[in-house]
Amino acid sequence: MKENVNLILSQMTLEEKAGLCSGLDFWHFKGVERLGVPALMVCDGPHGLRKQEEEADMMGVNESIPAVCFPSASAMAASFDRELLWKVGETLGEECRAEQVAVLLGPGMNSKRSPLCGRNFEYYSEDPYHSSEMGTAFVKGVQSQGVGTSTKHFLANNQEYDRMGSNSVVDERTLHEIYLASFEGAIKEAKPATVMCSYNKINGTFASENKEMLTDILRNKWGYEGCAITDWGAAKDRVKGIRAGLDIEMPGGNPLSEQKIIKAVKSGELDEKELDVTVERILRLISFCTQEDGKEHVFDRDKDHRIAGAVEKECAVLLKNESLLPLKETQKVVFIGEFAKRPRYQGSGSSHINSKQVTSALDAAKGNPNICYVRGYEENGAENEPLLLEAIKAAKEAKAVVIFAGLPNALESEGLDRSHMQMPENQNRLIREVANVQENVVVVLHNGSPIEMPWIDDVKAVLEMYLGGENVGEAAYELLYGKANPCGKLAETFPVKLSDNPSYLNFPGHSHEVHYQEGIYVGYRYYDKKEMDVLFPFGHGLSYTTFCYEHMELSRTELTEDEGLKVFVQVTNTGDYKGKEVVQIYISDKESTFDRPIRELKGYQKVELAPGETKTVEITLDKRAFAYYNTVLHDWHVETGEFVIEAGSSSRDIRLQETVMVHSLTEMPMVFERYSTVGEILATEKGRAVLSPLMQAISLAGGDIQTTDVMGEGTEAMVQAMMESMPVGNLVNFGAITEEQLEQVLTALNG
Amino acid sequence: MKENVNLILSQMTLEEKAGLCSGLDFWHFKGVERLGVPALMVCDGPHGLRKQEEEADMMGVNESIPAVCFPSASAMAASFDRELLWKVGETLGEECRAEQVAVLLGPGMNSKRSPLCGRNFEYYSEDPYHSSEMGTAFVKGVQSQGVGTSTKHFLANNQEYDRMGSNSVVDERTLHEIYLASFEGAIKEAKPATVMCSYNKINGTFASENKEMLTDILRNKWGYEGCAITDWGAAKDRVKGIRAGLDIEMPGGNPLSEQKIIKAVKSGELDEKELDVTVERILRLISFCTQEDGKEHVFDRDKDHRIAGAVEKECAVLLKNESLLPLKETQKVVFIGEFAKRPRYQGSGSSHINSKQVTSALDAAKGNPNICYVRGYEENGAENEPLLLEAIKAAKEAKAVVIFAGLPNALESEGLDRSHMQMPENQNRLIREVANVQENVVVVLHNGSPIEMPWIDDVKAVLEMYLGGENVGEAAYELLYGKANPCGKLAETFPVKLSDNPSYLNFPGHSHEVHYQEGIYVGYRYYDKKEMDVLFPFGHGLSYTTFCYEHMELSRTELTEDEGLKVFVQVTNTGDYKGKEVVQIYISDKESTFDRPIRELKGYQKVELAPGETKTVEITLDKRAFAYYNTVLHDWHVETGEFVIEAGSSSRDIRLQETVMVHSLTEMPMVFERYSTVGEILATEKGRAVLSPLMQAISLAGGDIQTTDVMGEGTEAMVQAMMESMPVGNLVNFGAITEEQLEQVLTALNG
Repeated sequence: MKENVNLILSQMTLEEKAGLCSGLDFWHFKGVERLGVPALMVCDGPHGLRKQEEEADMMGVNESIPAVCFPSASAMAASFDRELLWKVGETLGEECRAEQVAVLLGPGMNSKRSPLCGRNFEYYSEDPYHSSEMGTAFVKGVQSQGVGTSTKHFLANNQEYDRMGSNSVVDERTLHEIYLASFEGAIKEAKPATVMCSYNKINGTFASENKEMLTDILRNKWGYEGCAITDWGAAKDRVKGIRAGLDIEMPGGNPLSEQKIIKAVKSGELDEKELDVTVERILRLISFCTQEDGKEHVFDRDKDHRIAGAVEKECAVLLKNESLLPLKETQKVVFIGEFAKRPRYQGSGSSHINSKQVTSALDAAKGNPNICYVRGYEENGAENEPLLLEAIKAAKEAKAVVIFAGLPNALESEGLDRSHMQMPENQNRLIREVANVQENVVVVLHNGSPIEMPWIDDVKAVLEMYLGGENVGEAAYELLYGKANPCGKLAETFPVKLSDNPSYLNFPGHSHEVHYQEGIYVGYRYYDKKEMDVLFPFGHGLSYTTFCYEHMELSRTELTEDEGLKVFVQVTNTGDYKGKEVVQIYISDKESTFDRPIRELKGYQKVELAPGETKTVEITLDKRAFAYYNTVLHDWHVETGEFVIEAGSSSRDIRLQETVMVHSLTEMPMVFERYSTVGEILATEKGRAVLSPLMQAISLAGGDIQTTDVMGEGTEAMVQAMMESMPVGNLVNFGAITEEQLEQVLTALNG
Repeated sequence: MKENVNLILSQMTLEEKAGLCSGLDFWHFKGVERLGVPALMVCDGPHGLRKQEEEADMMGVNESIPAVCFPSASAMAASFDRELLWKVGETLGEECRAEQVAVLLGPGMNSKRSPLCGRNFEYYSEDPYHSSEMGTAFVKGVQSQGVGTSTKHFLANNQEYDRMGSNSVVDERTLHEIYLASFEGAIKEAKPATVMCSYNKINGTFASENKEMLTDILRNKWGYEGCAITDWGAAKDRVKGIRAGLDIEMPGGNPLSEQKIIKAVKSGELDEKELDVTVERILRLISFCTQEDGKEHVFDRDKDHRIAGAVEKECAVLLKNESLLPLKETQKVVFIGEFAKRPRYQGSGSSHINSKQVTSALDAAKGNPNICYVRGYEENGAENEPLLLEAIKAAKEAKAVVIFAGLPNALESEGLDRSHMQMPENQNRLIREVANVQENVVVVLHNGSPIEMPWIDDVKAVLEMYLGGENVGEAAYELLYGKANPCGKLAETFPVKLSDNPSYLNFPGHSHEVHYQEGIYVGYRYYDKKEMDVLFPFGHGLSYTTFCYEHMELSRTELTEDEGLKVFVQVTNTGDYKGKEVVQIYISDKESTFDRPIRELKGYQKVELAPGETKTVEITLDKRAFAYYNTVLHDWHVETGEFVIEAGSSSRDIRLQETVMVHSLTEMPMVFERYSTVGEILATEKGRAVLSPLMQAISLAGGDIQTTDVMGEGTEAMVQAMMESMPVGNLVNFGAITEEQLEQVLTALNG
């Protein structure tokens, strides 16, 4: 499709235009054959290709072509490695080109509101900055191959329960600071070819008809020029959708949709010019996805399998290690657990990959004669006493034990939220009983979301593999035996128990509504503000080596909001292993008018260091790093004042900090009315000039109010507080000033 | 005023009617001299008379007549003793009659949302049932003397910060289950002569103009026939107020108010008939408050001082006691602390009493030669090393130490919220350092609201006196030495730390708005649901004796919602002291569609038992005990199902439980539309009849969906969950049914 988009548009009939606004079938966008506009194939798969060749089915559960399963998004996010995400994206882009897939339906970029969301394994983080950074890199990687992406699910889709009917009620600030911000950076910076709207309502309006989301914010505020498409079956009123900025309805094949659009244009309900805007966007999308690069593209499943393993090594998080890991190949070690042999490496649902090859930890351990294996438990949760006894016996006889545990498939799936955060009790019991007879226990976890660990104090080490892709076994083996050094960091908090969660009282809602009552306090923002203990904090992850943070420097100590700030931190590998550290930069507003989190992640850099090596990490902060979203300005705003810049190895392991003074360039609009308080007015220069004389006169008239003290020491403070919090109009109620004086004061203040 | 109210009304001019709608001056409602309608004096004071004789001042801080200060509301609520509250009310009513006060401005009945609210000491509880029970008894007691009361501050006034301008944003269910319920029982049952509206806005409308609160709920739902009056200075637009159901503006003296009403009637903006409704209510109020009972009334300050002390003995809560209390008069004991000599016994603000006589613990200890006193600390928080050293020295030489500690006056006041929950650091340090040298430490607390106790593990006993009224010293002495046995129970949770509080993330709001995001999860409802540790739970309070709970019986095991349920619990005093126990009944819905608290207090009875004595307590539960507020019905609703009836000595010390089956008599309206889910429809009998055949047809057409299982064990559950949560209308999107079939289905379902 080399033609000029505008020329094609001018040649299209109304029917052809309307037709373009919904898909051809389950897996294709429509084209216009007459004008040489091709239909595009799209395909599920943020961490691998789920290309269906046989007939598509409504639930999307049927077999797809053999492909490569990379670590899921929650694993990849733990890498905190932008280049890695880019690399995975590039590899998937290449696979798509080889398979004639034009648009890859991912990445999933929703903020993790609750660990129970069934689809969390497909999302990056509880932190919007991090989610956006990961998405940016991934989208750029895929699109570097001329393959489109689809950032999803836009927006406020943070649960599977009633996902098609639930109304997410979220206040404006929270939407912008958490849920929109999780997409914003990636959409602005990486320009994904498409954005996929979610099924749910956002503050009363379905995402597929939500003009505020799809046009006012996505396009007008963020400058997005790509296509908005529906999640499969998310379209409602197609004409409302077009007007709201929704371009393509999927799946296709229902002629009713285009007929409605044609009818609406003919009846004048929809201006054809509005339709043209949509069609032009779709044509540009098709044009982007059909660029020829002249190269031959190959889906090399073996190479990509190796890449999947290499990626996972950067993702795994060493949660705990009391001098047990790495193991030595000369030690007698027992691998216990179903997942050692048959790892759980991906979640269920539309992202499910038909892996050609899966490598388990036992496969990877083949060359090691000192490992034996016992099954230990049944994945389905059934108690099996003989398996348990066999495991205990084997554990007693070994030097160390590695228990491969985690969540069964049924607990992590698109379409289904968990109702608790527990591992199956038979696994918990196995771990406890093994730990009773063996002091050297490592637990290797396979799960897409946080779990409770009632046995955490009984074991010496925990290695979180997440859902690590089809080569997770190789990664696990190499990490356990020190052939690779863990360097992942949690992109989400592991709370102690389910009820600790910020959304606990309001998840998943009922009666088709879910209220995001915790507001901006999602993830570590909540645990830190509430001063709560957590099992493992956001940003946490150990290494086989140690890192020393020194010499934090800022490029300025004072700046205006439009000036950038560079933060330099010197990091030294003070241990014996080569390793990687993620230097995290958190910002804290020392004092603010509005409630703000204790700290927020605003930058990070992963750095690799040989033993003894020192490097200086440089991280740049801009206005957004200091800003909160102001609902009067409907924009991000920086309050003038001091901010603390923290450099940490996790959100609860802050190593260095410096203070910087930031000056706002925005003047907040101030309008005083009769309910403005005396305190608010006296807090401004103008207010003091206008109101102070009057207040003095009142005070003189009131005589002894300020001086009597029959109520003890508090009276003066009480009187002052009462006066400051009194609406200026109430001075009239008490007869202290007249209505005319009040009007004069307000005119003078607002004049 | 013996005339018939209607006759008087018919004789009144428009000017006289309008005049009646605001006060005569600071402390009087207006009358109509021409018609023999007297002006009434009103007076601050839920726990004592604050009658100002000299000129009233705007802040109300000037001297009032010498009177008697009873324990504050938070103390009285800890008695859990309805008769006691009635007695206090009766005593105050008698004082009012003697002083020609017609209406006593109290009780304060707001639910305690945050322990920081400066006025918490004037409120009863975090539990609405308990608050309402206490208010009922108090109001009945006062009004038994022909003196009116004013339940205040109506409504959602749960902070002092910006109390005149803040908008309390509270959802409908929370308003009814917590904030309205805190008043509801008392207003329905005790019929207070007046209800005082608060300063703040409720969901956008000032309380003084809030028709939903003042008319729709208060009068139409609850059948209230008394007068609504403003808090002092809370009136806004007087005409709007009349139309909303607000009768009297206070303070009076501003001629503008009545002029506006006259003008509005003349212009037709306000129908004179609407004004007549208000005036008739005011005339009835005046009529009630001027009944002659032919008795002579005396304000006997000495008698009432003794009553104040007797009452406080029923209120004090023994929080902790490791076999130290009661003390023996033969032991050498040091009383340490300013408050032993000069007790803090009341809060600051409009409830402040000019006590004629105050009895300190030292005063009460006069006959005991084994007590010595050292000051220990300065109340204002200043460090004073010599005082500390003196205390440590004295503590070393004694057999036991009683530290009288608490909050300084400045931290608990109308008009000022606290910003933290800490005692002054000099007192905390004193307690720690004394406990270092003396193992027998009792802390006696004087405070109106919960505090953090960083030293709780260092001391053996803690006796919470609250703000115990002017005779608190006698009560403290008698309780410490076992002349009286503590029997109070906390009417509020003591959390471990400030950030544990449910409202912590949303208190006190900003920009003139406060969002009650924690919803119904206030107080123990929150701590229980979140499974949090607390310092001391709701309902907690120890005794010098022990009580055994046995033989819980229910009058039925199954009932319909309109049938009452009687709960019988047998309690035995198994210790050596005569004592009182508060048997608390909590209800828990075993399974519910809507989120519900783990348990809610729905009944209690205080019972006195001699050593070895057994009594059977009987508590009656009605529909409300099982109900939650349903926002579709806009009414209380019981869901059919099993409920657990728990009998406890505190909310976290449940001794017995039984299960009962309750049947609803209300059918929930059911309307299905295209966004109703397949699951919702199939959950109903009619839905199954209509939709099942169609779903079977779809399933057959979809063929292998249900049978393939490429995604592992979870697939079937996932497919089922997805299908159940799919809006029936989405079946059209996927081409599974036609638009016509959908319409037929909906017609059949709703027909």
